[in-house]
Amino acid sequence: MKEYCGIMGVYNHTEATKLVYFGLYAQQHRGQESAGITAWDGTKISDKRVFGLASSNFTENDFISNLKGHIAIGHVSSKPEKQAFLSCVDPFIIKYKGTTMVAALNGGLTNSQELRDLLENDGGVLRSDSDSELFLHLIVRNLHTMSEEQAVLAAARQLKGAFSFLLMIKNRIYVVRDTFGFKPLALAQYGESIIIASETCAFDLIEAKYIRDVEPGEVLIIDEKNMRSLWIDEDIPTEQRKRAHCIFEFVYSARPDSLIFGQNVYMVRQALGMKLAQEHPVDADLVLPFPDSGIYSAVGFAKGSGLPYEHAMIRNHYVGRTFIQPTQNMRDFSVRIKINPVREVIEGKRIVIVDDSIVRGTTMDTRVKKLRELGAKEIHCRISSPKVIASCPYGVDFASKGELIASKYSTDEIRQKLGLDSLGYLSIPGMLETLNRPKDYCTACFDANYPLKWS
Amino acid sequence: MKEYCGIMGVYNHTEATKLVYFGLYAQQHRGQESAGITAWDGTKISDKRVFGLASSNFTENDFISNLKGHIAIGHVSSKPEKQAFLSCVDPFIIKYKGTTMVAALNGGLTNSQELRDLLENDGGVLRSDSDSELFLHLIVRNLHTMSEEQAVLAAARQLKGAFSFLLMIKNRIYVVRDTFGFKPLALAQYGESIIIASETCAFDLIEAKYIRDVEPGEVLIIDEKNMRSLWIDEDIPTEQRKRAHCIFEFVYSARPDSLIFGQNVYMVRQALGMKLAQEHPVDADLVLPFPDSGIYSAVGFAKGSGLPYEHAMIRNHYVGRTFIQPTQNMRDFSVRIKINPVREVIEGKRIVIVDDSIVRGTTMDTRVKKLRELGAKEIHCRISSPKVIASCPYGVDFASKGELIASKYSTDEIRQKLGLDSLGYLSIPGMLETLNRPKDYCTACFDANYPLKWS
Amino acid sequence: MKEYCGIMGVYNHTEATKLVYFGLYAQQHRGQESAGITAWDGTKISDKRVFGLASSNFTENDFISNLKGHIAIGHVSSKPEKQAFLSCVDPFIIKYKGTTMVAALNGGLTNSQELRDLLENDGGVLRSDSDSELFLHLIVRNLHTMSEEQAVLAAARQLKGAFSFLLMIKNRIYVVRDTFGFKPLALAQYGESIIIASETCAFDLIEAKYIRDVEPGEVLIIDEKNMRSLWIDEDIPTEQRKRAHCIFEFVYSARPDSLIFGQNVYMVRQALGMKLAQEHPVDADLVLPFPDSGIYSAVGFAKGSGLPYEHAMIRNHYVGRTFIQPTQNMRDFSVRIKINPVREVIEGKRIVIVDDSIVRGTTMDTRVKKLRELGAKEIHCRISSPKVIASCPYGVDFASKGELIASKYSTDEIRQKLGLDSLGYLSIPGMLETLNRPKDYCTACFDANYPLKWS
Amino acid sequence: MKEYCGIMGVYNHTEATKLVYFGLYAQQHRGQESAGITAWDGTKISDKRVFGLASSNFTENDFISNLKGHIAIGHVSSKPEKQAFLSCVDPFIIKYKGTTMVAALNGGLTNSQELRDLLENDGGVLRSDSDSELFLHLIVRNLHTMSEEQAVLAAARQLKGAFSFLLMIKNRIYVVRDTFGFKPLALAQYGESIIIASETCAFDLIEAKYIRDVEPGEVLIIDEKNMRSLWIDEDIPTEQRKRAHCIFEFVYSARPDSLIFGQNVYMVRQALGMKLAQEHPVDADLVLPFPDSGIYSAVGFAKGSGLPYEHAMIRNHYVGRTFIQPTQNMRDFSVRIKINPVREVIEGKRIVIVDDSIVRGTTMDTRVKKLRELGAKEIHCRISSPKVIASCPYGVDFASKGELIASKYSTDEIRQKLGLDSLGYLSIPGMLETLNRPKDYCTACFDANYPLKWS
Repeated sequence: MKEYCGIMGVYNHTEATKLVYFGLYAQQHRGQESAGITAWDGTKISDKRVFGLASSNFTENDFISNLKGHIAIGHVSSKPEKQAFLSCVDPFIIKYKGTTMVAALNGGLTNSQELRDLLENDGGVLRSDSDSELFLHLIVRNLHTMSEEQAVLAAARQLKGAFSFLLMIKNRIYVVRDTFGFKPLALAQYGESIIIASETCAFDLIEAKYIRDVEPGEVLIIDEKNMRSLWIDEDIPTEQRKRAHCIFEFVYSARPDSLIFGQNVYMVRQALGMKLAQEHPVDADLVLPFPDSGIYSAVGFAKGSGLPYEHAMIRNHYVGRTFIQPTQNMRDFSVRIKINPVREVIEGKRIVIVDDSIVRGTTMDTRVKKLRELGAKEIHCRISSPKVIASCPYGVDFASKGELIASKYSTDEIRQKLGLDSLGYLSIPGMLETLNRPKDYCTACFDANYPLKWS
Repeated sequence: MKEYCGIMGVYNHTEATKLVYFGLYAQQHRGQESAGITAWDGTKISDKRVFGLASSNFTENDFISNLKGHIAIGHVSSKPEKQAFLSCVDPFIIKYKGTTMVAALNGGLTNSQELRDLLENDGGVLRSDSDSELFLHLIVRNLHTMSEEQAVLAAARQLKGAFSFLLMIKNRIYVVRDTFGFKPLALAQYGESIIIASETCAFDLIEAKYIRDVEPGEVLIIDEKNMRSLWIDEDIPTEQRKRAHCIFEFVYSARPDSLIFGQNVYMVRQALGMKLAQEHPVDADLVLPFPDSGIYSAVGFAKGSGLPYEHAMIRNHYVGRTFIQPTQNMRDFSVRIKINPVREVIEGKRIVIVDDSIVRGTTMDTRVKKLRELGAKEIHCRISSPKVIASCPYGVDFASKGELIASKYSTDEIRQKLGLDSLGYLSIPGMLETLNRPKDYCTACFDANYPLKWS
Repeated sequence: MKEYCGIMGVYNHTEATKLVYFGLYAQQHRGQESAGITAWDGTKISDKRVFGLASSNFTENDFISNLKGHIAIGHVSSKPEKQAFLSCVDPFIIKYKGTTMVAALNGGLTNSQELRDLLENDGGVLRSDSDSELFLHLIVRNLHTMSEEQAVLAAARQLKGAFSFLLMIKNRIYVVRDTFGFKPLALAQYGESIIIASETCAFDLIEAKYIRDVEPGEVLIIDEKNMRSLWIDEDIPTEQRKRAHCIFEFVYSARPDSLIFGQNVYMVRQALGMKLAQEHPVDADLVLPFPDSGIYSAVGFAKGSGLPYEHAMIRNHYVGRTFIQPTQNMRDFSVRIKINPVREVIEGKRIVIVDDSIVRGTTMDTRVKKLRELGAKEIHCRISSPKVIASCPYGVDFASKGELIASKYSTDEIRQKLGLDSLGYLSIPGMLETLNRPKDYCTACFDANYPLKWS
Repeated sequence: MKEYCGIMGVYNHTEATKLVYFGLYAQQHRGQESAGITAWDGTKISDKRVFGLASSNFTENDFISNLKGHIAIGHVSSKPEKQAFLSCVDPFIIKYKGTTMVAALNGGLTNSQELRDLLENDGGVLRSDSDSELFLHLIVRNLHTMSEEQAVLAAARQLKGAFSFLLMIKNRIYVVRDTFGFKPLALAQYGESIIIASETCAFDLIEAKYIRDVEPGEVLIIDEKNMRSLWIDEDIPTEQRKRAHCIFEFVYSARPDSLIFGQNVYMVRQALGMKLAQEHPVDADLVLPFPDSGIYSAVGFAKGSGLPYEHAMIRNHYVGRTFIQPTQNMRDFSVRIKINPVREVIEGKRIVIVDDSIVRGTTMDTRVKKLRELGAKEIHCRISSPKVIASCPYGVDFASKGELIASKYSTDEIRQKLGLDSLGYLSIPGMLETLNRPKDYCTACFDANYPLKWS
């Protein structure tokens, strides 16, 4: 299972490292377990990587005394600390003949093992399980016979899978996106500087101006001369290339204020909710979102159904990381600590709860029980995406297939297990209707129809 | 200006300190600057106090190695570190003839200076500016001639102002609430244990069962024998006593899932929003809450007006305390870092923004400008409380009167300053209509009609 | 049992708090468990107190952002954290009628309980077990009828015991030393500033110029006008007053580079060693000090005996506070971690080990065993002080009497228990011969002859 | 300039990581800037590396929750943080075809650049400047055509320079020492476990039993089967191989309680001092060591000269890392903070100061001035090693040659610059006389006679 993550790069700004920091900050939802920033000031590399939130673990002093440069790239990841030695957290750094080369990845390769075998059989020595390391090694191998730009392009052609890469090699940033365009990746102008980020919410925070998405299959080169593109599949016309954007970004992963794959996430989520109200109408008193993931589709469901929206699952905004263990007999504490429903809204009412997905069902189970305790008369559940039945090899960390409740049970069995009066999932066609170019999406987690096989 | 804060007490539980911790955790919104827990195990006091969030600064180890006892009280406060030496953060501790006495206060006395003079002129030596210290000194003075219970009661009668006190004296907890009932204070059962908290959301977290509010003027004594009450104004019938509950608790301070002064906060806020829609209707495309304080009245406004509710001010949930300074030219960064509006919802639309209050107006100003930038066609603002024109001597920390925008300018002047197309405040009568016993509330911040004078 | 500690005060310096910090740093051997600095800048108090070493727990930033003033006093203490709530660590602070009064003490009162009763029976409310708090309360009581200076003097006359006090009241520092002169206390000039410290090594570090000791019974007042003295026993001629300097300061407590009670500690320790060689000669191959406490008397013993000095107990200079637990079967680890003897020096040799004292004997026991393992042929032990048979009520924290090995066993029994070939303690007369004014010393820990009774 | 460091390995112990920790703790003097421990539990690697002291930065919890295994190796280094990204601190880790390989080095290669070129020209990709990484890459290259043991041996034969390596590959530890035997490396038994350390003081702390030194040119293999040796120079008889032990280990680097190169460091240092007294006698009153480096030769000098030894430079044992900046006008503060001389010993005396070496002379200069201020009548300086005139390519971090005072000035010029009455250095022949096998030492820092050239 690959990690879920976000990246940010800044070219040509005197405070490049701080801008990267703010970009990671805005994209913190893409990875809370580790963060790293690496910078180049024209003569040397500076670097800091931390476990936990970027927002809690970088300090003003880091930027004053260490992290300096006019080019910088950064990375946040959800890979847990135990899996990731500090040395193998992105941005990944290697040295080759005096040149430091740095890479940060959003995504996951599907041919990691082949590439690893290829490199090791040819004498390569790897330090880690990192896909970024593989990419850097491929580039270096190519450097023996090619220019730097061609070496990057040729290496990119050896990769399979979902990858949005930022590379920093001396005074140059390379931006590399797989031909399917699995992960979002966007470009912005910020005065004289160029910014690259997984999501546009990073641009909004610093008030950079969105220009365009990095194209699937594009290898964008940014240096002092200009900004130019090479293409991984240069002999196929752009319009004919197969696209496979991750639809789960709209369902859950991206921030609602981001623009990805040409559409705003908030608007899509609301449309998903409205479509859901059409597909699975229900006679009830109110719509209740499961925060925060269900809020936007719940607003849409309320619009679509005409039922009143009630924001009555109260979130504790002070829930931190290092939590005290509960005392004995505190059942379901970890769910309850985050959210408290308002009894006065629930009691005696027929409720429609709306969420984006059910993965293992344990949180849902606890919450449904709590709503019953508070006196809900009927509890109907509506899910703004189809049933998640298959794992993702491209970088979304669902539970392993065995634990995916939807892959083991029918909808009615799930309804019974969760103690619901009714349960409805949005259909795949219904979901796709909310999108401008429905054919350009990967729906493998819902239909096991993988656009790209893996080993 | 007194501090704003929350308290929690636990009587008779083997893990009393942890329960207090969880109670502070649930009430963290009442004070983020310091926290303290003090416990009694039958023979000795243990104690920890921290600056910053309780959730970040207590550790599991504190409870294993130090904080032990079957009786414990705790306190969270919004008083900034610079004002509060660590030694003077509640719970306040004194020793008198071998007995340790501990007090924690939610509220603020209005006769602090008189009491201070009284004590000092009589040889008293105070360590701090703490109102809790004053109360403890008064009790000790009385002990020379009275029993402990009478000494507490007599001391309580010397206090003026808003005070919800928890006292821990040996194996006994005293709960003392002023006769006006300014601050909320409630009682719950938890197995064999008794719990006291400022807000009932603390009970929900640990699944304690709410019994009743502590009454205004009540001095509740909890010990191994039983639970019994003395009354500060014992000669006046309860029903004739003047009450002055803080209406601002409903507007802003309390959590929406709490039950205070006999009503649920969420329901009152929604009613405020509905009433507001009646008083100040507007022809617009959508209702936009300013999170989180405006969400609940916005939901009510949407219901009352029939306009669609849009949850389109996206909050970054990872905003922490120790923030990196922005780079140059990042205007209004501290506002922008927390909230990002969704352009696609705003652009070309006539918007009603709903918030609970405008104090200084600076945040509102920044947000209105941002909405204009994103293309809002009209921006109407509706405030779910009357204009705040007067400061509060009872423990709500508004800006000083000079900075209260509503005390200096007419509604139309404010509208112009903030660049709004229209602006409407809820009326005082409108606000009071949402409450069961409208005469029992203090509305001094809106009308300068103080139920109790101060020096 | 009272705490062992050191104090430092600075009057009239723009960086008074840093100078105090350095003074505590130099006197860190007098207390490693907590430290505090309190400053006055003419209008307000600033304060920081920490657990652990001053050197590890104050930061440059404390001095930049918080600890500011031209007058400051500080304190280091050996009282363990569990005994000392942070609020009760010296410097102790009280507020009285708008005036903040601060006290720091080296020593211990013998009439604490009487003073406590007196104050409490008269309505006083104390926060702690602190002797400093008692002194401050006495002063405040006196203020009702006296000037500030007279109030301090009168309060000082109510104290019994060993006390070297620093008081900071507004723009004034008071230095108060008991009439016996138990604890060292010295005065220095530093440019335009006045410095007071327990030991002169604090002056050396900052290159302040030692002027004189604060006299026993002196109440020295330092303010903008001048420096002047009041006397606790003003009607008795100075030369007739009974003195009782703590002789254990020479044996162990003070730093060898300090000048206390008119003599240099290093020179006295060396003289003790020479005297010891006279009293208890031994036929051996070499003299081995137990570091660091035995080094100086061992050097003296080597001179006195003509035997070669070997510095062959190697100390690990990196031993810190928070140490990892040893693995199973690591006997005597806490002794071994600090010191490793050199086998090649020990093997086959007749050794004289020299130390300053034996309190419980456990460390000595472990070390003697180790020396036997390494092949020492004979092990003779010489102690550069008499047998410690009695506890100290004046602020030296020996083990309680029950645990003092010398109070339970004869010298020969101790020799046998420790597996020594011979054992010799310096005699009381021998010890006193090394001092200029032998009658001016307290030798109670050696002869139970207490100059001042206690309750 | 290479780093100065120490290593520790443990084979087959249930608490291997803690034993390594203690070994690093005992060898902390060999590197205070970073530390790392890596362990293997039969199935996976665990790892922690820190900046600063091992003793301050590892916690009990590290060993409970993370660092687990029956085989472990560790490393302390003096390379400053800025030079060492955390990822490149030893133990260095690589992965190759599913096998994790770990290396820790004491020493420095002289053919690093050639090896780097060789590897990179052949497609190798390096992450760092680490010599350990080079060694690991060489081994992996050899694995294509050889068994693991032969691959290690062949790689060791490609290395030039000073190297004491610990390798951990699966269930095996390899110990590799260069043929010159530059750095000390010793072997001990600990119950059923095998311990390897740079210095024997690591064995003493855990009470492991020293067996023998690892031989120059030895490749020792430790696994479940047995302990066996391969030889880098197998065709040359052991007795004919050129040895070049670092003589500076005796002068300064090693702990006095260690046994290195067959001799105890304390005894050698004392002999150096006695020899120095013969070569440069002086008519004086006392011998004063510069602590701690000069103590042992000062004791020897005192014996050799018959002059009294005075331990009168008092060290502050609480000097930590993060130190507060001095106030203005505090000259030479960083020297003074550590050591304070005792005026009463110095004043009016003719003093011989003894130290192990003078590198840049700045500390000596400050101290001589201070002794003059304290009234020293004559100051003679004796150095227990020859003049350091050349830099070391084998891992001792002297200042660069330009800064070595002895390489620029004659002895008399140095004497004048430092304000000394006389100055004497030990001669090279005199130094070598103290050693059992004088021909087996490298004296390059004293005579620029390098046993091994470097690039």
